[in-house]
Amino acid sequence: MKVNTNPVRGMKDFLPDEAELREKVKRIIIDTYTSFGYRKIETPALEHLELLTGGDGGENEKLIFKVLKRGEKLDLASVKDEKDLSEEGLRFDLTVPLTRIYANNQGNIPLPFKVIQTDYVFRAERPQKGRYRQFMQCDIDTIGEKDYTAEIDLLIASSQALLNLGFKDFTIHINDRKILHMMAGKWGFGEKDHDNVFITLDKLDKIGVNGVSEELKSKDFNSGAISAMINDVTQFEAAEFNHLYLNEEVKKVIEAVSLVADGRYRIKFAPTLVRGMGYYTGMIYEIKIDGYPGSVSGGGRYDKMIGKRLGTDVAACGFSIGFERIVDIMMEKRSGEKSGEKKIAIIFDPEVHDAKKVYSEAESQKIINKCIVSVARKEKKFGRQLKKLYDQGFTHYGEFSDNFSPFTIKELKNEE
Amino acid sequence: MKVNTNPVRGMKDFLPDEAELREKVKRIIIDTYTSFGYRKIETPALEHLELLTGGDGGENEKLIFKVLKRGEKLDLASVKDEKDLSEEGLRFDLTVPLTRIYANNQGNIPLPFKVIQTDYVFRAERPQKGRYRQFMQCDIDTIGEKDYTAEIDLLIASSQALLNLGFKDFTIHINDRKILHMMAGKWGFGEKDHDNVFITLDKLDKIGVNGVSEELKSKDFNSGAISAMINDVTQFEAAEFNHLYLNEEVKKVIEAVSLVADGRYRIKFAPTLVRGMGYYTGMIYEIKIDGYPGSVSGGGRYDKMIGKRLGTDVAACGFSIGFERIVDIMMEKRSGEKSGEKKIAIIFDPEVHDAKKVYSEAESQKIINKCIVSVARKEKKFGRQLKKLYDQGFTHYGEFSDNFSPFTIKELKNEE
Repeated sequence: MKVNTNPVRGMKDFLPDEAELREKVKRIIIDTYTSFGYRKIETPALEHLELLTGGDGGENEKLIFKVLKRGEKLDLASVKDEKDLSEEGLRFDLTVPLTRIYANNQGNIPLPFKVIQTDYVFRAERPQKGRYRQFMQCDIDTIGEKDYTAEIDLLIASSQALLNLGFKDFTIHINDRKILHMMAGKWGFGEKDHDNVFITLDKLDKIGVNGVSEELKSKDFNSGAISAMINDVTQFEAAEFNHLYLNEEVKKVIEAVSLVADGRYRIKFAPTLVRGMGYYTGMIYEIKIDGYPGSVSGGGRYDKMIGKRLGTDVAACGFSIGFERIVDIMMEKRSGEKSGEKKIAIIFDPEVHDAKKVYSEAESQKIINKCIVSVARKEKKFGRQLKKLYDQGFTHYGEFSDNFSPFTIKELKNEE
Repeated sequence: MKVNTNPVRGMKDFLPDEAELREKVKRIIIDTYTSFGYRKIETPALEHLELLTGGDGGENEKLIFKVLKRGEKLDLASVKDEKDLSEEGLRFDLTVPLTRIYANNQGNIPLPFKVIQTDYVFRAERPQKGRYRQFMQCDIDTIGEKDYTAEIDLLIASSQALLNLGFKDFTIHINDRKILHMMAGKWGFGEKDHDNVFITLDKLDKIGVNGVSEELKSKDFNSGAISAMINDVTQFEAAEFNHLYLNEEVKKVIEAVSLVADGRYRIKFAPTLVRGMGYYTGMIYEIKIDGYPGSVSGGGRYDKMIGKRLGTDVAACGFSIGFERIVDIMMEKRSGEKSGEKKIAIIFDPEVHDAKKVYSEAESQKIINKCIVSVARKEKKFGRQLKKLYDQGFTHYGEFSDNFSPFTIKELKNEE
């Protein structure tokens, strides 16, 4: 039977070069956050649909992969609606599961709870270049800390993770939902229109000042408010860094992070930063790397979201590193580079009598050179075997037989 | 809205202690196999149902979590059968995806392809203690190596992984499907009955020699064959190590692995070892740890499985470390032990002026002590704050203000 051997639509296989880089990046991120006191937790890939469709996921709630009911629960005869077919789905983010695990274990968790999650999430989006239906998210969150030290800690730890990954020339953009509301009020927009105004303002990078102005006009907002806003936004653009609406909290965060950054990276007030998710209640932030469009990571404070499940509000803020984006950039940077890693194949004659000596040789090579060692049996067509090892990425080989002593390591060349 | 905050039925959340141990175990396994030349690959959690139900999964094919079709593809009005509702499902093992990724990339993959996979698989089994519907599998496989050096390498690398995880007193049990067939023939069972006989023999550990005998009688097999078999099996039990049916290949593997083991672990011929999966064609093996029932890992050769997809057979053998089992044993061992790790909280006065100094102090503590450092703002109820830090697992704290100099680290005690 010949079957389709492609991965399912919109998802991706990773062969060794990429899979190993992904593992490396993940470890650097986890290790950095761990050294700042964040602790790893894990939740299952499946969640109750009731939880996933609770309203915090926005558009993502429409992209859920739903799991078919099983056995007696699946009664095809009485199916009237999609709801009769499924009660569980694949998670579309890690924030919804985080609020669930916190709600479920709050008695056992001392606050503040500093959490790291690195796991796959699933969204049935229209497949497009560089975006997949299964992708890795790396989130850190601090639950139970009202103070802006939580934000300082998140931002310093995340910047350190990027430094440890080899990035420099990146900038943290920071704003506050409270500042956005304050500005919108001052410009003359009614409070009930704020979110709608922010949806348009969020497109500034893509459609420019004129685009924003046009869209707001088409939404029939007060033209005086629109021109007051456009006037300010244009000023922000020109001055690049505008302190007009900066509040005390954001200022303190910028000061502390700048001091720690010590010129290794930058942080700046970005009064037009909105970030999409409706659940943010306070500071919002994202990181941009010079030379790459868009942001590589972002997050914000969401003090009301957990309260929705618990009945009482719990302060929380989080930051998500764009894992897939970062791996893409690193793959791009790396292509062409030679890794410089030594990879030795130890080949032994089938007639060799002391298998132990072969393996202890392999063992000692590994220890001395900190390299990858693999043991293979010598093939009759030895030249072809060496060529094959070269193609597999081996850089050196050592031949072992009862007669060979001492054991020497030779470089592999691309010839048969 | 109050929703159910438990994980979905049969699945599990992992809080930090367990999640961090899982990460550690996974890294030790990956690093050990990497040092033996195995390379990591990754496939998506979802696969085409057509592939998953291809017949290699045995009973697992009945336990697939199927994903509901979406959009126009889901036409509720014309649904006649479950098949109309779903075309993708969550993988139930990593072997089926491995054969798919190999089939899909065979032109780009030089052989032998030594692979490591550590990923979640999903089975809708009846939930029971210690068994979950989502669990981690750690598989290594060698594709394209007919020679038994592949088995030697798999077994040595896997044993090394167990040693690196801190296990000793474990034994590799090894057999060969060819030996099983040869014995069954000699005992007098017809070739078409072999697999059915092996299904019963596989239960030997659970139901004992008498149980096996009774079950074979109830299956109406020839009583002469049954008593010949029971006679041999009893002998195996008594002698514990029986070379009567040992073949040359298994003997060579036992010799090589014993030499490398050098007394650190054991390997023995186990003529009644069957292992469930029908796709095994050659040597089969599992590892048992003294004092723990059942096996912690196992595998075998499956030279025909890839051929089913490609049309031409490709030699392959694999080994799977029972990740969840191993984590359970390690959690059990660890409970009660104190980790001994230093975890320092650096507390700073809200009035401190040099935030940079606080963070560089945190930074240097981390480097000097290789410990986890977290920065917190000093609270008014300082005693209560220290108690809270103690409860969070911090062992030490350092207080930082403009007046404190030099900076000293004190031990945290369980008192307010």
